[in-house]
Amino acid sequence: MKNVILCTALLLSLKTSAQHKTNLIQYVKPIIGTQRMGHTYPGATVPFGMVQLSPDTDTIPFEVNGKYNPDVYKYCAGYQYDDRTIVGFSHTHLSGTGHADLGDFLVMPTVGQLQLNPGIASDPKSGFRSAFNHANEIAEAGYYKVKLDDDNIIAELTATDRVGLHQYTFPATDQAHIILDLVSGIYNYEEKNVWTYVRVVNDSLLTGYRQTNGWARTRTLYFAMQFSKPFTHYGSKEFSKMPYRGFWGKFDQRSDFPEIAGKQLRMHFDFKTYTQEKIKIKMALSPVSMEGALQNMQAEIPGWDFNAIKQQAQVSWEKELHKIEITGSNELKENFYTAMYHAFISPTVYMDVDGQYKGLDQKIHSAKGFTNYTTFSLWDTYRALHPLLNIIQPARNRDMIQSMLQHYNQSSLHMLPVWSNSANDDWCMSGYHAVSVIADAVIKGNANFDANKALDACILTATHRSYEGIGSYMDLGYVPADKNGTGASNTLEYAYDDWCIAQLAKKLGRMDVYNTFMKRSANYKNVFDTSTGFMHAKRSDGSFTPNFDAMSTNGQGFIEGNSWNYSLFVPHDPAALIRMMGGKEKFINYLDTLFTMHLPDAFFAETEDITREGIIGGYVHGNEPAHHVAYLYNYAGAPWKTQERVRMILNMQYKNTPDGLGGNDDAGQMSAWYIFSSLGFYPVAPGSTQYAIGSPAIDAAILQVGNGKQFIIQTINQSAKNVYVQKIMLNGRILNSFSISHDQIMKGGKMIFYMGDKPVK
Amino acid sequence: MKNVILCTALLLSLKTSAQHKTNLIQYVKPIIGTQRMGHTYPGATVPFGMVQLSPDTDTIPFEVNGKYNPDVYKYCAGYQYDDRTIVGFSHTHLSGTGHADLGDFLVMPTVGQLQLNPGIASDPKSGFRSAFNHANEIAEAGYYKVKLDDDNIIAELTATDRVGLHQYTFPATDQAHIILDLVSGIYNYEEKNVWTYVRVVNDSLLTGYRQTNGWARTRTLYFAMQFSKPFTHYGSKEFSKMPYRGFWGKFDQRSDFPEIAGKQLRMHFDFKTYTQEKIKIKMALSPVSMEGALQNMQAEIPGWDFNAIKQQAQVSWEKELHKIEITGSNELKENFYTAMYHAFISPTVYMDVDGQYKGLDQKIHSAKGFTNYTTFSLWDTYRALHPLLNIIQPARNRDMIQSMLQHYNQSSLHMLPVWSNSANDDWCMSGYHAVSVIADAVIKGNANFDANKALDACILTATHRSYEGIGSYMDLGYVPADKNGTGASNTLEYAYDDWCIAQLAKKLGRMDVYNTFMKRSANYKNVFDTSTGFMHAKRSDGSFTPNFDAMSTNGQGFIEGNSWNYSLFVPHDPAALIRMMGGKEKFINYLDTLFTMHLPDAFFAETEDITREGIIGGYVHGNEPAHHVAYLYNYAGAPWKTQERVRMILNMQYKNTPDGLGGNDDAGQMSAWYIFSSLGFYPVAPGSTQYAIGSPAIDAAILQVGNGKQFIIQTINQSAKNVYVQKIMLNGRILNSFSISHDQIMKGGKMIFYMGDKPVK
Repeated sequence: MKNVILCTALLLSLKTSAQHKTNLIQYVKPIIGTQRMGHTYPGATVPFGMVQLSPDTDTIPFEVNGKYNPDVYKYCAGYQYDDRTIVGFSHTHLSGTGHADLGDFLVMPTVGQLQLNPGIASDPKSGFRSAFNHANEIAEAGYYKVKLDDDNIIAELTATDRVGLHQYTFPATDQAHIILDLVSGIYNYEEKNVWTYVRVVNDSLLTGYRQTNGWARTRTLYFAMQFSKPFTHYGSKEFSKMPYRGFWGKFDQRSDFPEIAGKQLRMHFDFKTYTQEKIKIKMALSPVSMEGALQNMQAEIPGWDFNAIKQQAQVSWEKELHKIEITGSNELKENFYTAMYHAFISPTVYMDVDGQYKGLDQKIHSAKGFTNYTTFSLWDTYRALHPLLNIIQPARNRDMIQSMLQHYNQSSLHMLPVWSNSANDDWCMSGYHAVSVIADAVIKGNANFDANKALDACILTATHRSYEGIGSYMDLGYVPADKNGTGASNTLEYAYDDWCIAQLAKKLGRMDVYNTFMKRSANYKNVFDTSTGFMHAKRSDGSFTPNFDAMSTNGQGFIEGNSWNYSLFVPHDPAALIRMMGGKEKFINYLDTLFTMHLPDAFFAETEDITREGIIGGYVHGNEPAHHVAYLYNYAGAPWKTQERVRMILNMQYKNTPDGLGGNDDAGQMSAWYIFSSLGFYPVAPGSTQYAIGSPAIDAAILQVGNGKQFIIQTINQSAKNVYVQKIMLNGRILNSFSISHDQIMKGGKMIFYMGDKPVK
Repeated sequence: MKNVILCTALLLSLKTSAQHKTNLIQYVKPIIGTQRMGHTYPGATVPFGMVQLSPDTDTIPFEVNGKYNPDVYKYCAGYQYDDRTIVGFSHTHLSGTGHADLGDFLVMPTVGQLQLNPGIASDPKSGFRSAFNHANEIAEAGYYKVKLDDDNIIAELTATDRVGLHQYTFPATDQAHIILDLVSGIYNYEEKNVWTYVRVVNDSLLTGYRQTNGWARTRTLYFAMQFSKPFTHYGSKEFSKMPYRGFWGKFDQRSDFPEIAGKQLRMHFDFKTYTQEKIKIKMALSPVSMEGALQNMQAEIPGWDFNAIKQQAQVSWEKELHKIEITGSNELKENFYTAMYHAFISPTVYMDVDGQYKGLDQKIHSAKGFTNYTTFSLWDTYRALHPLLNIIQPARNRDMIQSMLQHYNQSSLHMLPVWSNSANDDWCMSGYHAVSVIADAVIKGNANFDANKALDACILTATHRSYEGIGSYMDLGYVPADKNGTGASNTLEYAYDDWCIAQLAKKLGRMDVYNTFMKRSANYKNVFDTSTGFMHAKRSDGSFTPNFDAMSTNGQGFIEGNSWNYSLFVPHDPAALIRMMGGKEKFINYLDTLFTMHLPDAFFAETEDITREGIIGGYVHGNEPAHHVAYLYNYAGAPWKTQERVRMILNMQYKNTPDGLGGNDDAGQMSAWYIFSSLGFYPVAPGSTQYAIGSPAIDAAILQVGNGKQFIIQTINQSAKNVYVQKIMLNGRILNSFSISHDQIMKGGKMIFYMGDKPVK
């Protein structure tokens, strides 16, 4: 009873604070995940913004002497916490991804003799990079500040949706420079820069573009860059092996020459500064044109008030963070709100303020009635991020789906996106999980698009025979190992996706489609080896592949996972899975073994992305295929084991420190897992209206579920020890199952978890 | 008297034929100039059209092992008459220029086993190129036809302003291919292709673009390509050293994969054909976008009637050729109408049917009230081509000037174009001769633009201190040799251009500008060495350079000419020039020596562009600086010598054969010289209203000078021997000078030259 009173008091304090707009961004620590494998960045961005203005601590080439350079992987987000130098501040970064691109338009302030090469980390004075110290670094939501030690310059960054704002505080000098490095980029290789163009419009304004052939095959980002103070001189240098062969001798084109184009350009802008003089830079981006960038700049940052823009950025974060207000320890809040922050970074806005954007067909389109987004890491984010958005960002999720449908409309292949990146498909990872996101939204009633046309898009995508084994899959019921290196996991992922399509078809009353895809959704059975009890890659002739190793992630037909984890990938029909695996007891035993086994060192040698910290027993949380696994105990009649495992994962895999993430945040999926699981429920099978109940780690939470409605979660007697759910009351009535429906959440209400230190069996 | 009657009969026949629209294109021989140095091409284009669809007979790299390959120069227009193979048909060509670019979108039909490399000339079967024979080749204005011997395919080409239309007649085969080579280009080097993109929209339509870094530093040309018959399959191959590093394994992207981007792409489209089956291709171009190209296609060639488009192209040529109707020998007519044809190829239209075009600032602009043009080879064409257009194409010339003024508006340098090429300035050759074209048009009353703003543009261009010695020129009165390798000729060209600016200012009543630039126009005196009687490069300290050689074109401070020719470059004040050179007698002697001297072999070794055929004595007609020289005798009181020399040049420098041009046609300037001179007058100093009288080579001519007015030129007793003017009657009154004014021509009338075989001294 004491606890009930305490919690009610907490809730009251929450409600009060919501009215007074508690400062929640104080709990956001963008530095979380910047060490080792998190692949997050500490710089400034606004929710789902086009600009991610952040320091890059090294510029590592993708290849050295034509060979892949493994060090490059660390720099997916441009920043590694252990580094001691900053090369500069670039304007675009992917958050938490396992492959990379971007890093456009690196800007760096310097003083003294001009240096146009970045120099090396061990000797920062060898180039324009600078040493820095974390003691002089502040990373907040929407704001970043650091002292650049080499030249005693204070750098501050903030952003709007489409414009990065820099503020550099210089010492007094006759030789202040601002470098604009158009060579630098993330995952750079010699031919990544296709072309760059810069036009010096006047003594303080440039426009231009950078065109790359990176992860995105053909991508152009336009910019407009304005300085708060006119430069006295400027210049450019072409670092490519083959400079322009045309006539150029009429001018000295290296200095004060305003029409610049080339493959590997670095520019400098020169100033005289007095002590503590602040030079500010607005860098506006556009996927469409230089005019679009200028228009974006004028619309979003017409003036020069750095603090006002910073405040505006932070207010926008506050607004988004207030979608869920929790109580709990400071550490919990830091983990939770940083997860919220990371979950709200991407997908990213991909259109100008006037609605124009570049489509997959490389044409300019106008977004009518929706905001166009890109950066869809769907293999990751269909699992929990998009379901989360359906609850607390439903309008944005609808627009994201509109964006996917436009991608489909613009696709010569007539396919939905797999990994949408800046008017390109990166085709990364397997499945066609856009169908999951679409089905989930329609089934949960969050669709403002034509659901029948969306279903057509799903069907055409899922029947594109030339795409990664789909033809064989349709003919044989599985993707054969001799046709496709990841045929086993593809089969499993396709089967789940097909179930999503079936659910969508059912909702729309298209029962022929429902029947076809329900049949396909059982294809997971075709790669299950009853003799071993594991999923196992099968060849075209129907035989399983030899040399099976359920532990190995290499050459066994699975992507980013081994058979031990992937054998559990039937999220849409756990009951059938359990039967197939020999019944509840055997199944629980399988799960227990997974969570407690000891992995040999060889496992880590061959597994990308994952450190020992990203693994519990043989359960891999750092990669996604097992994200639903802890919740499967529920379906085998052992919910207390789900509760135990979920809390274990929350504790072990998320910390409020730079090395706090056990694997890539994966564009917010890891964070979305944290948010759901710490609230006490999880979408095991998006496309279903049901969430599985876990074990809440918060003390209390208020979810803003739209139209002024709130869904309140309260825990009684919850603690690090009291992880077992004793009883759940939903709106005053006992909840008799370990699942809750989307409607139950969205209509608002109150859910009270009574917790204890003993499992309720 | 007999002659008078004869000529009147001729005129009558002309008038009658004009009413009946004589077939004049029968006299156009596009093959003239395709052998050796003419740099013309035989393919299909319409007057001033954006598309120049023409065979390329070789693909010569600009560099071999990092060194300039001198053979490439022959292929400025893609075609050399002596070659025995055709590599394919590309859509853009410069006509007669001395540097090159373009050659976009090479298309080639083949049968049999697919070949995606062009092969070598000595073994055409080693690649997709084919042997051909001139006996099976027809080159007409607006139409080109050839038999491709290797595969027995008939290729026919025609064009509209923005669309090339191909018609290939195939044999029966299961293996017909059409190659689209995006690697091929003119003046190609390894890094010239910046990027290409192709989207296969459906089974018969592609859109895409090619982006190059050629002579134009940064240029993108968009296309839409439609086949008259669906292809059964298609594929692409990337020939670059560094192909795309992203994920691509999800599809076999080499075949039937519709979203293609890369640096060095060749594509093939496969068909089955029956005997004599015609496959047609529409290739629409746009400087703006793929949508723009599609729109251009739909507007200009909605259907598939090859013969109708061919007829339309030829009707448009007839219309332009009828601006001047002449009588004379067949050979004369072929020379004359081919000159008209070559004079009406460029500048070229550079905008979509909706008026959109890419500006120098790389932004998209909309041309309001004018047609936007590019391909301004102004160092060549200010001399006679633009003056010719002022007479018979005044509306186009006005639009060309509007285009130049927009170029100026879009220029970060605030300069008028020097060599405008596809939204770039190639900065080729010296001077700022746009001012001559502008002044000439204004002074001749052919200006629909704001002449005061145009004068401002001229002034800012002429005072751009950082441009090729202008700063020194303004300070010292000449461009010093130690600052600039062509300081002597620059000084001469600037002085003439300054005189043009002064004339324009005077016309506008801006006398301060007039005075300033009249003073500058006398700067030619500062590089005249009175001790030798030659123009001579001077150093900053006021001394002339040592080791002077009036014959040499190398290292003497002159561009494309020696001091012997350049010493005569004071077109705006021949009287002062004659005084400076010692009076009329000495001057005539100088000219005589120039035309009769014997040149040593060493001269040719060091002189670009010019064969022995391009030279008479020491007079170089194949390059432009002396184009006015034959007319200078007039000013020294020896007009009969002008008459003699002009006819000699007409005879020796122009023939109706493939090798008929003694030097590059230079974007129509050589042809414009021919047209003026064969009519009997020439604009010695554009910017003046006066034309110098020479010796007409035609029997009679009718010039359509606008508003239905005609200016008729009639010669009495003219023949190869009778080159001397005995008397000139203008509108029934004796003309007492050897000049005629622009007004006298434009108000219409009749000018009768009475000719004889004796000079009238």
